[in-house]
Amino acid sequence: MDDIKNKLILFNKERDWEQFHTPENLAKSISIEAAELLECFQWNNEYDIHAVSDEVADIVMYCVMFADKVNIDLKSEILRKLDENSKKYPVSKCKGSSKKYNEF
Amino acid sequence: MDDIKNKLILFNKERDWEQFHTPENLAKSISIEAAELLECFQWNNEYDIHAVSDEVADIVMYCVMFADKVNIDLKSEILRKLDENSKKYPVSKCKGSSKKYNEF
Amino acid sequence: MDDIKNKLILFNKERDWEQFHTPENLAKSISIEAAELLECFQWNNEYDIHAVSDEVADIVMYCVMFADKVNIDLKSEILRKLDENSKKYPVSKCKGSSKKYNEF
Amino acid sequence: MDDIKNKLILFNKERDWEQFHTPENLAKSISIEAAELLECFQWNNEYDIHAVSDEVADIVMYCVMFADKVNIDLKSEILRKLDENSKKYPVSKCKGSSKKYNEF
Repeated sequence: MDDIKNKLILFNKERDWEQFHTPENLAKSISIEAAELLECFQWNNEYDIHAVSDEVADIVMYCVMFADKVNIDLKSEILRKLDENSKKYPVSKCKGSSKKYNEF
Repeated sequence: MDDIKNKLILFNKERDWEQFHTPENLAKSISIEAAELLECFQWNNEYDIHAVSDEVADIVMYCVMFADKVNIDLKSEILRKLDENSKKYPVSKCKGSSKKYNEF
Repeated sequence: MDDIKNKLILFNKERDWEQFHTPENLAKSISIEAAELLECFQWNNEYDIHAVSDEVADIVMYCVMFADKVNIDLKSEILRKLDENSKKYPVSKCKGSSKKYNEF
Repeated sequence: MDDIKNKLILFNKERDWEQFHTPENLAKSISIEAAELLECFQWNNEYDIHAVSDEVADIVMYCVMFADKVNIDLKSEILRKLDENSKKYPVSKCKGSSKKYNEF
């Protein structure tokens, strides 16, 4: 993750693009790219592996840039959130169910 | 990234949730979480650091799960895409500009 | 609204496109078009009036088709929701504030 | 549509909310509400009719407000776009196909 982050910071610095990368603009960008991934599944579930690879890579790149701009360590936040989810969704209550934690 | 992936696979296996995690459903989930991040910036650009950390972590977790389901190596795809972007956006043409590659 | 709805039904019938227009696929389509509108504001708030007109028209067309597929009268639902919003957001409590109803 | 627009303008004026309703913020709001509609279909295609009615109403309300803020007549724009789509997607070429106009 750090390797990707450093390459992205350099990529943007070289292009003088940091000026556009406010947290808000990056949040918009993540939604825009997420919809491009969704578009690969708009009318059916047969997807083009090249198209979906491109889009999911774009989304994660913007997420790495977002985390950098708001000064959080993405990996620690994911591990923390996963730990919280384990408590919110105890195996005994949610096994095999797609219900939300506030529905069971 | 592998560490996160393995923890996520275990988390979902324990809950018997793999049945819900088709590539299409995960693509929808990424868009849904991306919009929750965007909601942190709906009316202004003052954000709650805890809320944005939660949302960006959720997005990346779904991306890691998506990559696993469609059998791609997320890190390699990101490095490949970044390399392609370097060619699509040469420094000499796009420095300081937010234009798309097909606009300059 | 009825005029638009009837034109859209005919447009899709002629193309034999109703088969693709499940409520789920239309919901995805609305998100995809909404992100295209958002893209007009990705890096700044200067927008192209032609681009935003196209996108907002696309979104509403998909919403009209969605309402038709799930058998609701869009106009009545909007008037009902607006009425509920008036109660959820009483003027005395929310004047000049962008807080959500569960935050005040 | 005019009736809805006038009621929405009054609703927002009473609450002094026009200050938040820049075209950009409304574009974000449309994406956020679109994702809430998508969430009704996150794991399967069985939807709650009350939930989807609420969400599609919210989306169209924000679209009506957006059209008002950027000074376009939403109905005319939809009829114009539908007319353009008829030319972009001639029946003879696209009947029964979900391909994009640039794919056939």
